[in-house]
Amino acid sequence: MSIELRNRLFQQLDQLVLIDPHTHINSLDPSSHTLADILGYHYYTELAHSAGVPKEKIEEEGISPKEKVGRLIENLGPITNTIQYSWFIEMAQKLLDFDGDTIDTSNWEAFYDAAEEKMSADSWTDTVFSKSRLEGVFLTNDFDDPLEGFDTAKYIPCLRTDDLVFHLTNPRTKVRLYEATGVDISDVVSARQAIGKLFDHFVRNNAKACAISLPPTFAPVKVSDARANTALANVLSSGTSADEDDQRAVSNFIFWTLAENCQERKLPFDLMIGVNRKVFPEGVFQGQDLYDSRVSLIQYKDLLNAFPDVTFPISVLASVTNQELVSYSWIFPNVVANGHWWYSNTPTYIQQDCAARLEAIPRTKQIGYYSDMYKMEFALPKFAMYKRILAKVLAENFVVDRGWSEESAVELGTQLLRGNVETIFNVGN
Amino acid sequence: MSIELRNRLFQQLDQLVLIDPHTHINSLDPSSHTLADILGYHYYTELAHSAGVPKEKIEEEGISPKEKVGRLIENLGPITNTIQYSWFIEMAQKLLDFDGDTIDTSNWEAFYDAAEEKMSADSWTDTVFSKSRLEGVFLTNDFDDPLEGFDTAKYIPCLRTDDLVFHLTNPRTKVRLYEATGVDISDVVSARQAIGKLFDHFVRNNAKACAISLPPTFAPVKVSDARANTALANVLSSGTSADEDDQRAVSNFIFWTLAENCQERKLPFDLMIGVNRKVFPEGVFQGQDLYDSRVSLIQYKDLLNAFPDVTFPISVLASVTNQELVSYSWIFPNVVANGHWWYSNTPTYIQQDCAARLEAIPRTKQIGYYSDMYKMEFALPKFAMYKRILAKVLAENFVVDRGWSEESAVELGTQLLRGNVETIFNVGN
Amino acid sequence: MSIELRNRLFQQLDQLVLIDPHTHINSLDPSSHTLADILGYHYYTELAHSAGVPKEKIEEEGISPKEKVGRLIENLGPITNTIQYSWFIEMAQKLLDFDGDTIDTSNWEAFYDAAEEKMSADSWTDTVFSKSRLEGVFLTNDFDDPLEGFDTAKYIPCLRTDDLVFHLTNPRTKVRLYEATGVDISDVVSARQAIGKLFDHFVRNNAKACAISLPPTFAPVKVSDARANTALANVLSSGTSADEDDQRAVSNFIFWTLAENCQERKLPFDLMIGVNRKVFPEGVFQGQDLYDSRVSLIQYKDLLNAFPDVTFPISVLASVTNQELVSYSWIFPNVVANGHWWYSNTPTYIQQDCAARLEAIPRTKQIGYYSDMYKMEFALPKFAMYKRILAKVLAENFVVDRGWSEESAVELGTQLLRGNVETIFNVGN
Repeated sequence: MSIELRNRLFQQLDQLVLIDPHTHINSLDPSSHTLADILGYHYYTELAHSAGVPKEKIEEEGISPKEKVGRLIENLGPITNTIQYSWFIEMAQKLLDFDGDTIDTSNWEAFYDAAEEKMSADSWTDTVFSKSRLEGVFLTNDFDDPLEGFDTAKYIPCLRTDDLVFHLTNPRTKVRLYEATGVDISDVVSARQAIGKLFDHFVRNNAKACAISLPPTFAPVKVSDARANTALANVLSSGTSADEDDQRAVSNFIFWTLAENCQERKLPFDLMIGVNRKVFPEGVFQGQDLYDSRVSLIQYKDLLNAFPDVTFPISVLASVTNQELVSYSWIFPNVVANGHWWYSNTPTYIQQDCAARLEAIPRTKQIGYYSDMYKMEFALPKFAMYKRILAKVLAENFVVDRGWSEESAVELGTQLLRGNVETIFNVGN
Repeated sequence: MSIELRNRLFQQLDQLVLIDPHTHINSLDPSSHTLADILGYHYYTELAHSAGVPKEKIEEEGISPKEKVGRLIENLGPITNTIQYSWFIEMAQKLLDFDGDTIDTSNWEAFYDAAEEKMSADSWTDTVFSKSRLEGVFLTNDFDDPLEGFDTAKYIPCLRTDDLVFHLTNPRTKVRLYEATGVDISDVVSARQAIGKLFDHFVRNNAKACAISLPPTFAPVKVSDARANTALANVLSSGTSADEDDQRAVSNFIFWTLAENCQERKLPFDLMIGVNRKVFPEGVFQGQDLYDSRVSLIQYKDLLNAFPDVTFPISVLASVTNQELVSYSWIFPNVVANGHWWYSNTPTYIQQDCAARLEAIPRTKQIGYYSDMYKMEFALPKFAMYKRILAKVLAENFVVDRGWSEESAVELGTQLLRGNVETIFNVGN
Repeated sequence: MSIELRNRLFQQLDQLVLIDPHTHINSLDPSSHTLADILGYHYYTELAHSAGVPKEKIEEEGISPKEKVGRLIENLGPITNTIQYSWFIEMAQKLLDFDGDTIDTSNWEAFYDAAEEKMSADSWTDTVFSKSRLEGVFLTNDFDDPLEGFDTAKYIPCLRTDDLVFHLTNPRTKVRLYEATGVDISDVVSARQAIGKLFDHFVRNNAKACAISLPPTFAPVKVSDARANTALANVLSSGTSADEDDQRAVSNFIFWTLAENCQERKLPFDLMIGVNRKVFPEGVFQGQDLYDSRVSLIQYKDLLNAFPDVTFPISVLASVTNQELVSYSWIFPNVVANGHWWYSNTPTYIQQDCAARLEAIPRTKQIGYYSDMYKMEFALPKFAMYKRILAKVLAENFVVDRGWSEESAVELGTQLLRGNVETIFNVGN
């Protein structure tokens, strides 16, 4: 009975048209051209690498997309158990009319060609949007993105700020900032001016969020202008050889300035907390980052208190931090629990984390899911995975355990999937 | 089948008459007078605040109880998903004859009046005790509580010691201690004398436990009398401006002295580990505390080894610490796993934590649940929530997975709910 | 349906003949002689002690095995809920023809005698191997074990290295090393020579792994030869009174040298991460160790990057570290998730951890289970516990949730239980 109940709830949730509140879609080239765009996603290359395929074989320069896909397909046997592999199969079945459960050396070439054929249609991106029941996606834009050449109501800009906060040590960042704003930063005044111009540009182009990913050691505090000036001078002149204290002071100053701009522009500030970059430098492209799960939201205490009017949709990298996210969202009006990020985006952790959120965070303060995808084709299987788990949690923990009606359960699920994206980011409504 | 099985087990567990081993009941005014006493509970005010109701609206001075309830009811829509809201509805249905699933602007006033009518009966507290199948509750008494004017067999005193351990920096604490004991503390000798007198007073009045809540950074160690004398002198003269080292030394000295008194009086010492106070100072009353889940029971190693004859019922604030609690209870004869505290008192975490305890801690060393309530009406729905989860775990993990008889499963549940409270706290038997 | 499905999967997994990849079996005396060998296992003595039996009663010198068993049986009432107790009953039923669900004062003596009778048969060890469907077990050999007098194809040597890395402060370790290798270590050259000889000896005798357990604070780094020489000199002369820095440098140097030897000999290096020794010094034998769950695999970053050709089967002591293990196994080609260790070897944690691994780590990179047993009789109930949980996860998360065929699910389970032990350790194939 519970399985039929889950299916009924899933069917209803699956009808919703959604806006994906966090992706890495390239708005000028949103969908795939061949299966190489699909299997080139780091979720496959890193798993294939982990299972024994040499990096050189995966990333060899000059090989054709088809050659690359062939090399990967040959080596997917060891990852057929993973949920990531199941995304590939579901996408193949639902978007590319693949008929079967396994794609391997026996059948991949014909499927590659058929997929390329379909993907070459002018309407392919529209087809994917439509079959995925998406009407818009949030982007992840570099701060110097011109935001031109696309429909910003469908491809919604989001100002990504990692470079500003953590890479002003790189001289190139200062140059890019100058090119984007006409401001050559040298002190807190010019830095504030440059950042203000970035926000102006983004807000003018329909940006609906500012976002950043943060290492587990980051603990933002406000620094004085005097301290920030000294630190900026040192970082801009000495780069990565500047004192760590100065680097940290600059990060804090820039981060705080971003929050001030979010406040002024009423822009939510997505915090994605917990990643250590380049833990495995010999890993494949985008397959080098990991984490230290010893992080606490207490590190954000000062920030959350200083900016009561800024909404902070927070994602945590490890499920062990989810209970803190639940509790902080339960107490702080400006904290929202946001999706299931990266290493926590697998069914076992989603189920546990989703269930804990649903029973203790106000229903208006949780964003169910975002895909984090690089190519549009991933929305369908990733959201389907989430919706199945959400349906399971609603069925078991609400309808069965708490006696809710199916209708009420679907309403709650709908709010997580769609309604809260509208209200929190002020889109689509 | 499993659902019917769960229900059968629940029905049997639900018949038990219980003693609630940890509450904040005011023994001179134990139950509610209006719904404002119910909805004024921080679980509702903080969730309403988190969902957007201004603190000023909730805590405005001089508004009537009915006005307060009206303001809250209007704003409960965003929290209807929470387990805390379900407590309110179940309490309304089972104790106050409310007929329906939702209390909102359309029906609250009539219900408010009807509730006030029922609550005004002289027998209301008795009615609540009886319908909740409780025969006694542990209190949380300030160290200077006179413990007079109530039946200490029903309202069982418990010496709460946070003020002594952490707030001797506040001159008022020293004064209160003098008023309670006639001892003006100035050094380790007088401090020991004063604390001894508190214990005498409490034990004479049927106290069955000493209790304290502890921040995640606390790691008790024994300090020498000489060190404690210096530190005490500094803390008593300089208050919160005393050296942190001295403040810590005083906390350690007082804490150790409490454990010594527990040993001498054979009193269990409840440790509630992990809370950070005032993380959100702008939060509503009692809705300002959160935590850092990076805490370990290894911090209590010296204490647990130094006091083998003191039973330490331990509660942890975050579920990530529960496995340590399981392991430490499995190894240390003097560690008992105690209930599901605060931010871990929600179904998903209770189920995981309860299941892990049941399969690895001796059955004699686990206290199933306490309500932590401020008003008697909360016992019924909170215990009902726990008993449903306990029945689910017993059904699935014991009857189904391990082939236990239903009778044996109920026996185990009964021991957690009732038997161990009797044996561990020496009450009710 | 799900329960029947689970049972079908279990039945198939239960037919497999296995190799147990980590035990503490004494190859010269592998199975029990009386129930005292069973109940003397620390899982029972420590739980009985925790439940109130004085250590002196359990460990009194000179009492007969039967007296010891009697004392324990009398006191097992408080632990009948534990999974460890269920191992005892299942072992009694399946290996010793015990008919019943409870062993207590009313029936233990007859059972003791019957068990002793069976265990005295010359073929008893063979019987246990056969009924448990095991064909080999990995040992845990001291570095100076002569590895003589047994069949190393069945009792597969594993070089355990805790003493070398952490106890060179003990003069006896240096003497044992001299006795085992003829090398009197005094500097990095002689230390490398001695360790190389140990590896020669072990590999010559069919060793298939090197292994070590590590405290949560350990974070291996490479130290220079110069630094290691200074540190070694100090540690060898001053023992435990040597500087902590020097002790740490020696641990690092030896640990790194072990990894170099594993690389050279293509030997997997089992890392068992997270134990604090002697947290409860008054505990029973082997019942004194606990842990601090605040540990991260980021501590092993340098090691994992430095030795890409060494396979590291990693076990973590606390389930909160399991997600990191999943993620690091997903990214690092040389990391393998290995079994469910000690305090995480209970059903609730196994189920959560196993499910998370199955959906995100390549199927070739997970070792399902090892028993960690001291006596052969424990393999049957411990593996049965694991296989039931594995069958449950495969049934619910793969067949039901993901639409897998039962055949595919059994294949995946088979790979975890048997295939990966063969390929990762190069045995039995």
